[in-house]
Amino acid sequence: MQLQVALDTPLETSLKILQKIYPFVDIAEIGTPQIFQEGIGAVKEYQRAFPALALLADLKIMDAGLYEAQIAFSAGCKYVTVLGVASDDTIRGVVQAASAAEGKVLVDMIEIKDLLQRSEQLIDLGVDYLCLHTAYDKQKTEKAPLKSLKLIKNAFPHARLAIAGGINLDTIDEIAKIKPEIVIVGGAITNAKDPVAITKQLKERF
Amino acid sequence: MQLQVALDTPLETSLKILQKIYPFVDIAEIGTPQIFQEGIGAVKEYQRAFPALALLADLKIMDAGLYEAQIAFSAGCKYVTVLGVASDDTIRGVVQAASAAEGKVLVDMIEIKDLLQRSEQLIDLGVDYLCLHTAYDKQKTEKAPLKSLKLIKNAFPHARLAIAGGINLDTIDEIAKIKPEIVIVGGAITNAKDPVAITKQLKERF
Repeated sequence: MQLQVALDTPLETSLKILQKIYPFVDIAEIGTPQIFQEGIGAVKEYQRAFPALALLADLKIMDAGLYEAQIAFSAGCKYVTVLGVASDDTIRGVVQAASAAEGKVLVDMIEIKDLLQRSEQLIDLGVDYLCLHTAYDKQKTEKAPLKSLKLIKNAFPHARLAIAGGINLDTIDEIAKIKPEIVIVGGAITNAKDPVAITKQLKERF
Repeated sequence: MQLQVALDTPLETSLKILQKIYPFVDIAEIGTPQIFQEGIGAVKEYQRAFPALALLADLKIMDAGLYEAQIAFSAGCKYVTVLGVASDDTIRGVVQAASAAEGKVLVDMIEIKDLLQRSEQLIDLGVDYLCLHTAYDKQKTEKAPLKSLKLIKNAFPHARLAIAGGINLDTIDEIAKIKPEIVIVGGAITNAKDPVAITKQLKERF
């Protein structure tokens, strides 16, 4: 399992947190709000400080798949996200951009009604990772999407999976049993008083 | 009807085009790819050049509704977009941010399967505009969403509607008959040899 840290704090705060925890981080996610604030130019700041770290741009692409994915890959990101609710044409565009740039496509499965059917279609379209994701706006009432992760793992044992949404020390053990390729942690690390301690503890349970 | 011009060209090109056509433009849309490239800081460039022009940030919000909408409104935009496929909680957050900032919420209806049912829910949630939208990635095979516009107009005669996706001089007359509040035109203006001529011709048919 790889640890992806979702950086939704302002750029400067994110860089400071990453400075402490980067030896334990496999992928640094430039969160959607940070991209809205800073634009893709933020990538340069991360590359300057952490030249070896893999970066993901959480663009949540919904249209203009080829064009928008190229923005992330041209800037130097290894991963980009597209919404699973986007059209097949958009997914194809993102996959095409990734293929040309030797990048990877992570599909955010947020708000997909028929997970099994859409997962099969997305796998056929050639995406790299399916990311089960409990929306930030739903985390008050819904926990990490463990049931969805199990459902997709059982139906598609060879699919590469990721999980996101309120993951913390209370939920990591159950998730680790299923062994998704990528575990995405945000607030549990970035809002912690001691991000290094939490990150280490999470990784020990991987 | 109001004319919204969708600016998906690079920032400098967009400013140059707008310099020519702004007297005919009611709303300038900072397109999703431009926000990915430049960040919300681009708003300042538009405000400097066109202090009186209403701006829309096409964020296509899918999560963290309150937080992400605040990014657009704090920067000085009058309008922000949210995806209709987002959760009700996310829509509520965007509406709350708009209400606090005296801004407006435009819902992008892209990829919604049951347009009538979702439109009713979105109206109940207090959004300002429903925008029927043919995805850029589908415009090779699908035209402007005239049928969807008629469907929603008939079902909800008092809903404020917008339309987007491949609108040009060939399709404007049919659209004008239905009188949506906002007509969004992108490439037909921004890719034209003479953007002023096209913009004038479109507005004459409003």
